[in-house]
Amino acid sequence: MIEPFDVVDLIRGKRDRGTLSTEQIRWLVDAYTRGYVADEQMAAMAMAIFLNGMERREIRDLTLAMIDSGERMSFDGLTKRTTDKHSTGGVGDKITLPLAPLVASFGVAVPQLSGRGLGHTGGTLDKLESIQGWRASVSTERMTEILDEVGAVVCAAGSGLAPADGKLYALRDITGTVESIPLIASSIMSKKIAEGTSALVLDVKFGSGAFLTDIAQSRELAETMVALGEDAGVATSALLTNMNVPLGLAIGNANEVRESVEVLAGGGPADVVELTVALAREMLRLAGQPDADVEAALRDGRAMDTWRAMISAQGGDPDAALPAARETHVVTATTSGVLVEQQALPFGIAAWRLGAGRARKQDPVQHAAGIDLHAKPGDTVTEGQPLFTLSADEPERFSRAIEALDGAYRIGTDGDEIVTGGPLIADRIGS
Amino acid sequence: MIEPFDVVDLIRGKRDRGTLSTEQIRWLVDAYTRGYVADEQMAAMAMAIFLNGMERREIRDLTLAMIDSGERMSFDGLTKRTTDKHSTGGVGDKITLPLAPLVASFGVAVPQLSGRGLGHTGGTLDKLESIQGWRASVSTERMTEILDEVGAVVCAAGSGLAPADGKLYALRDITGTVESIPLIASSIMSKKIAEGTSALVLDVKFGSGAFLTDIAQSRELAETMVALGEDAGVATSALLTNMNVPLGLAIGNANEVRESVEVLAGGGPADVVELTVALAREMLRLAGQPDADVEAALRDGRAMDTWRAMISAQGGDPDAALPAARETHVVTATTSGVLVEQQALPFGIAAWRLGAGRARKQDPVQHAAGIDLHAKPGDTVTEGQPLFTLSADEPERFSRAIEALDGAYRIGTDGDEIVTGGPLIADRIGS
Repeated sequence: MIEPFDVVDLIRGKRDRGTLSTEQIRWLVDAYTRGYVADEQMAAMAMAIFLNGMERREIRDLTLAMIDSGERMSFDGLTKRTTDKHSTGGVGDKITLPLAPLVASFGVAVPQLSGRGLGHTGGTLDKLESIQGWRASVSTERMTEILDEVGAVVCAAGSGLAPADGKLYALRDITGTVESIPLIASSIMSKKIAEGTSALVLDVKFGSGAFLTDIAQSRELAETMVALGEDAGVATSALLTNMNVPLGLAIGNANEVRESVEVLAGGGPADVVELTVALAREMLRLAGQPDADVEAALRDGRAMDTWRAMISAQGGDPDAALPAARETHVVTATTSGVLVEQQALPFGIAAWRLGAGRARKQDPVQHAAGIDLHAKPGDTVTEGQPLFTLSADEPERFSRAIEALDGAYRIGTDGDEIVTGGPLIADRIGS
Repeated sequence: MIEPFDVVDLIRGKRDRGTLSTEQIRWLVDAYTRGYVADEQMAAMAMAIFLNGMERREIRDLTLAMIDSGERMSFDGLTKRTTDKHSTGGVGDKITLPLAPLVASFGVAVPQLSGRGLGHTGGTLDKLESIQGWRASVSTERMTEILDEVGAVVCAAGSGLAPADGKLYALRDITGTVESIPLIASSIMSKKIAEGTSALVLDVKFGSGAFLTDIAQSRELAETMVALGEDAGVATSALLTNMNVPLGLAIGNANEVRESVEVLAGGGPADVVELTVALAREMLRLAGQPDADVEAALRDGRAMDTWRAMISAQGGDPDAALPAARETHVVTATTSGVLVEQQALPFGIAAWRLGAGRARKQDPVQHAAGIDLHAKPGDTVTEGQPLFTLSADEPERFSRAIEALDGAYRIGTDGDEIVTGGPLIADRIGS
């Protein structure tokens, strides 16, 4: 086959702040997928994109080319409308767990293709796998059945969706080219568009525990993704949400399932409830139910019923006891006062070091490892009271986790500024 | 083995405009040489270095680390002083051929480890291989013998010198990361320092036919390399020379040998003589002979005698006829006037398309292919007179070569500006 472009010319073009044409991008992604463009060439291109950026048109072309590298799913056979949610990832972010059944309880289909955690942010599939019997792998036929009967399914994306993205994502992970707006936006949106949802709500995080810490960058990412969705005919909106503080009181896997069930039972921490309700309203609005009474579905057990059906449909036992860690370590307040700071990133790293996350793709996670917080910023604490409990299967993990938490929280006096970086939901992007 | 650094952290550091420590650079080069750091990771690092640069200290550390990846040669056993020359490469740049024997005729040892051409600039070894019987491969023992007896040797660098550079250079070539001052400087200087010369003169080109077209960038490269040489105890200086116009009248391989022999016989084009003499003076000055009468050695046959001995020592027959091309094509002046422009780059590309150069490392060159110029900028030309002759073994090569020359030369009228971009030798850098 005669190649229409020279990949070195394309790399040099982006390196020198040029734009890549639609034809060049389509060829690049195709040639990379079939192995004609080598990993080292794509790595150089990814770094050039990271440092020199891409125009909106280039990002759209990249997204479409990655979609075209694989198959597209379709939920046209469903009588329900489909709506999906994606979070850019944060510490204690278990929102998918209560959200999917909550939205599904309104007769909307929520096909939630999720991933596993890598680094300090957890993965939805890892959390659900702490439920006895639950399996992430579901065939496309069974997925449609569950959507029809139950309404919500959370499962692993098949390798047939946007394989170019799968290959590029693995490359970015080892070449320091993850936190790039064009690359993040095209990666997320290629999978979501290929998945065939008709509506999509994005939870784009900012703050110390997010991939993009700066709110201006997160806003740009959100705007880019919303435009990509709209261009592809997917009704898309985004919430910009604060990830300076861990979300909720549980960071880990089994403990996040427990907290999610509390929310579905009408309780749970205020921030988790607030974000779950806001995202559910957004999803239902895009699905044509702007007036849905979301809180009522949490209060009256409809969301919980859907949760139980959703877990059972994938082989899980919603009544089984969740795994407990072999060892725990309680950290207490050394003084009385007000908890004024609780930084997301170090708590995420600490939970990861306890075994809740993985360093390499092939590593397992320890489902009972993690952190339970006993106070949130603004709470009054008394000397000697438990501030948080660390859980791990291996006691030798505690010291490095505690090391990560050095300076990560602070007890001040009444009147000190509470450092949370503003409200939980900073803005909404999209029509 | 426990690795002291995480390569992704190092890539991210350079990506974010940080500096790499001495320990980090030493580890990176070592880990890349032994294959622990993957090509795609080094490609991302190379692009980050290309776009964000390196401090002088980092460049020095990179150079030293690449030297330490292999062996060092030593000419301590020689009674002669050693001096070497390196050119960053240009169109028609055959200067090594007359220069090495000229300098050696003054009793100085010139161990000239050279490369092959890739792209539009030719390689010294390719040119010499058009001489019947001449071989580029010489053992270290034989090299020392030739230096002792003849004084000059031009041969291929062994793979034992700076192997990290060999690996990185091949990677840069396919990842669009060639034209970077830190990477060029460390690549050239690691090999030259490992080679063990006590003095080094650099011919750093600028202009349309050079790797770095901008004179300010070429000056920075020259200053960087001179500092690296001095730091390593090698007496180093550099000339900044103009590569907007092809050097001499011959571009190719056999025809460049012919032109070099003309210079050694006391004739040859004025620009080739000027640069040969200037570089010879510089090399002899660094070797302790500031008053050497270089022109006399060209006039009285001493340089020619050394040339003949040098060629014979490597199996070549200095009296054998040079190969002639099967086909020639003459381009004539379409009007009378003054030749006001003759651009190096298109002439280099045209010669390369005729077969004088190679597209891939493993390709052979055609020794008789190339271009002979019959006029230089400033010359008066008459309608119908030959302007240049293209030579090739395969007549189908002419059309693409002629295509490259479209707009590459221009005949004006008396009084028009002659476009050469200034004098041949723009500046001298170093002590």
